[in-house]
Amino acid sequence: MFIYADNASTTKMSPSAIEAMLPYFDRSYGNPSSLHNLGQEAMEDLVKARERIAQCLGCHSKEVYFTSGGSESDNQAIISAARIGSKCNKRHIISAVFEHHAVLNTLNKLKLDGFEIELLPVGETGRISPQQVEDAIRQDTCLVTIMYANNEIGSIQPVGDIGRICREKSIFFHTDAVQAAGHIPIDFNKQYIDMLSLSAHKFHGPKGIGALIVKQGIPLVNLIEGGAQERGRRGGTENVPAIMGMAAALEESCKHMKENSWKISEKRDRLIEALAQIPHSVLNGDRFERLPGNINFCFEGIEGESLLLLLDAKGICASSGSACASGALDPSHVLLALGRQQEIAQGALRLSLSADNTIEEIEYMVKTIPQVINDLRSRSSRWEDKMSGKVPFYL
Amino acid sequence: MFIYADNASTTKMSPSAIEAMLPYFDRSYGNPSSLHNLGQEAMEDLVKARERIAQCLGCHSKEVYFTSGGSESDNQAIISAARIGSKCNKRHIISAVFEHHAVLNTLNKLKLDGFEIELLPVGETGRISPQQVEDAIRQDTCLVTIMYANNEIGSIQPVGDIGRICREKSIFFHTDAVQAAGHIPIDFNKQYIDMLSLSAHKFHGPKGIGALIVKQGIPLVNLIEGGAQERGRRGGTENVPAIMGMAAALEESCKHMKENSWKISEKRDRLIEALAQIPHSVLNGDRFERLPGNINFCFEGIEGESLLLLLDAKGICASSGSACASGALDPSHVLLALGRQQEIAQGALRLSLSADNTIEEIEYMVKTIPQVINDLRSRSSRWEDKMSGKVPFYL
Repeated sequence: MFIYADNASTTKMSPSAIEAMLPYFDRSYGNPSSLHNLGQEAMEDLVKARERIAQCLGCHSKEVYFTSGGSESDNQAIISAARIGSKCNKRHIISAVFEHHAVLNTLNKLKLDGFEIELLPVGETGRISPQQVEDAIRQDTCLVTIMYANNEIGSIQPVGDIGRICREKSIFFHTDAVQAAGHIPIDFNKQYIDMLSLSAHKFHGPKGIGALIVKQGIPLVNLIEGGAQERGRRGGTENVPAIMGMAAALEESCKHMKENSWKISEKRDRLIEALAQIPHSVLNGDRFERLPGNINFCFEGIEGESLLLLLDAKGICASSGSACASGALDPSHVLLALGRQQEIAQGALRLSLSADNTIEEIEYMVKTIPQVINDLRSRSSRWEDKMSGKVPFYL
Repeated sequence: MFIYADNASTTKMSPSAIEAMLPYFDRSYGNPSSLHNLGQEAMEDLVKARERIAQCLGCHSKEVYFTSGGSESDNQAIISAARIGSKCNKRHIISAVFEHHAVLNTLNKLKLDGFEIELLPVGETGRISPQQVEDAIRQDTCLVTIMYANNEIGSIQPVGDIGRICREKSIFFHTDAVQAAGHIPIDFNKQYIDMLSLSAHKFHGPKGIGALIVKQGIPLVNLIEGGAQERGRRGGTENVPAIMGMAAALEESCKHMKENSWKISEKRDRLIEALAQIPHSVLNGDRFERLPGNINFCFEGIEGESLLLLLDAKGICASSGSACASGALDPSHVLLALGRQQEIAQGALRLSLSADNTIEEIEYMVKTIPQVINDLRSRSSRWEDKMSGKVPFYL
């Protein structure tokens, strides 16, 4: 059995997304900036792709800027808002402790430039309340950046409510929607979003391509200077094949979102119920306001990396949290933000499902994961100490 | 007849580069940062790709940083060197008037931050001499950035000599090798290069991927903050399929470089000789120190855009200069730098060949282009004025 349950890290490309890319490798390979027919054909398809993507997100095609992915989008959005803020002496930025490192590290850089970064704490189920944002807003706040859904624990944030508050106070609102786009409904305009980041490889599109959606009138700062591509806001020949793959993948995801969401969350719930039966375990993230495919548990007495390797040996591809942070021995900043003890946070398991996961795969995981955890615990002297009462349990 | 003679804008992907990408879309699609087998397999292939690319360029695999393309590489290289320079109060940067806009616009940005940018003039054949660089170097020079070969006129620069001078004076030397990589030999170490930019889609690899080669020990500034990818210097999930495509394309280009270079430059020379016969025409760029595939002429009395459109109608895909600047009505800054009059610079034609161009295609162009120019001139009242002596000829 081979089970891919790490779709929050990256996804398998869908056949239609691959098919959408192929003609642009060696047939319609023109540079959209070229005046000849081959170039202009590419440009026309690019224009259409922008419209198709806008259609999926409730924005205007002029608001779509193509980037190399979610991290670049996050960087450009935040730096742009900061630049505008600093021009009117507004140097206070509100974000949250559990953001992705593309956001947190960009904010850290701004801190060195004299910005004051306020990271909101998150509740124990990993949600930010609109009230928290409202309370944190000051006269000198230039940006609120709160992710749409968390990449580790899948908790979905009240983006529309946060957006409304920011709009009322004329403060830019950016949301890292890398985990949300293609998975749950997004309406850029109706949710009062000013800037939104997404990445194609999280919804069965290609790696190396993403978008930054930017409300018309907001002047972006260029991260990458060069030619006049992307209305002068992002140099470099447009990655036409990948853009076509992204458009196809996003359309497909949005078209099947309702049914997939239902099917996937049913499987998610089956897994959550089963894993919750494991003694000394705890679900991370909100039980209901949660991405359809996300399961995240901490198991006391378990070392995350060992768990992953044993599961891998059983054919289950899983993660201990963010792939970007895997390999790092530090416990997840997201789980610590939920108030998990360091020892507990180190025993985390994230399963992230897609529509490709079958019921058989779910049942195999329901059977296998408790066995593996049992096995790991039985080999641990520290677990024996807990069982014998020498060391207390946290969970 | 359909002739693609715009390979300096972008190239058709080679079958082997496409083949190298395909498995990574839906089979080996793991995130290299994931601990499970699927992720680790991708990581292993990534490591090998880095080594294969290093092998082609005479550098160490630890010196290869993957980026989204040439523009990103140029930006990151220049900003990194500037940051290091400013720390030791060195704020003088030497470059050249005919650089790509990815370089020039980044330098313009640095100017706003207090850097002094010295753009060397280029000789009439579009070359920088090592002596010019040596003479321009000052105590406070922190960077010399000179392109390896010009994208419009194909003139190859004495990179090794410039590198040696910079190394002797302990000044960083960056070269934008976007037009050179895969086309002419590069030896990163032997040419004393500190930073080198390249882009895969210029040598039959995929769009949206490039590399910045950086001498070990030079601390890069992150343009894109995020996860720990690229040794912490470039956030974002690695674009594994595109990296595999780039490695395959570069290896293939380097393997066949000698024979291709010979074959292509023979065709180039046939075209140059034929087009030079057109009255009131002038070759732009150096006759000998020139990219194998580059032909660039100015034709007096011709408006570049009309020429391109008529050639397109005859099945010839060509360019008036940089694709990145196409559409802009301004004459090329490169041609102006050579001393061409504005009116002359507007009548430029760049043909850029690849190994795919056949002798039949060359002969078709040899026959067609003079006809089209003749046709255009015969329809121009301004040309009549020239012919009747009312307006003088420049050429």
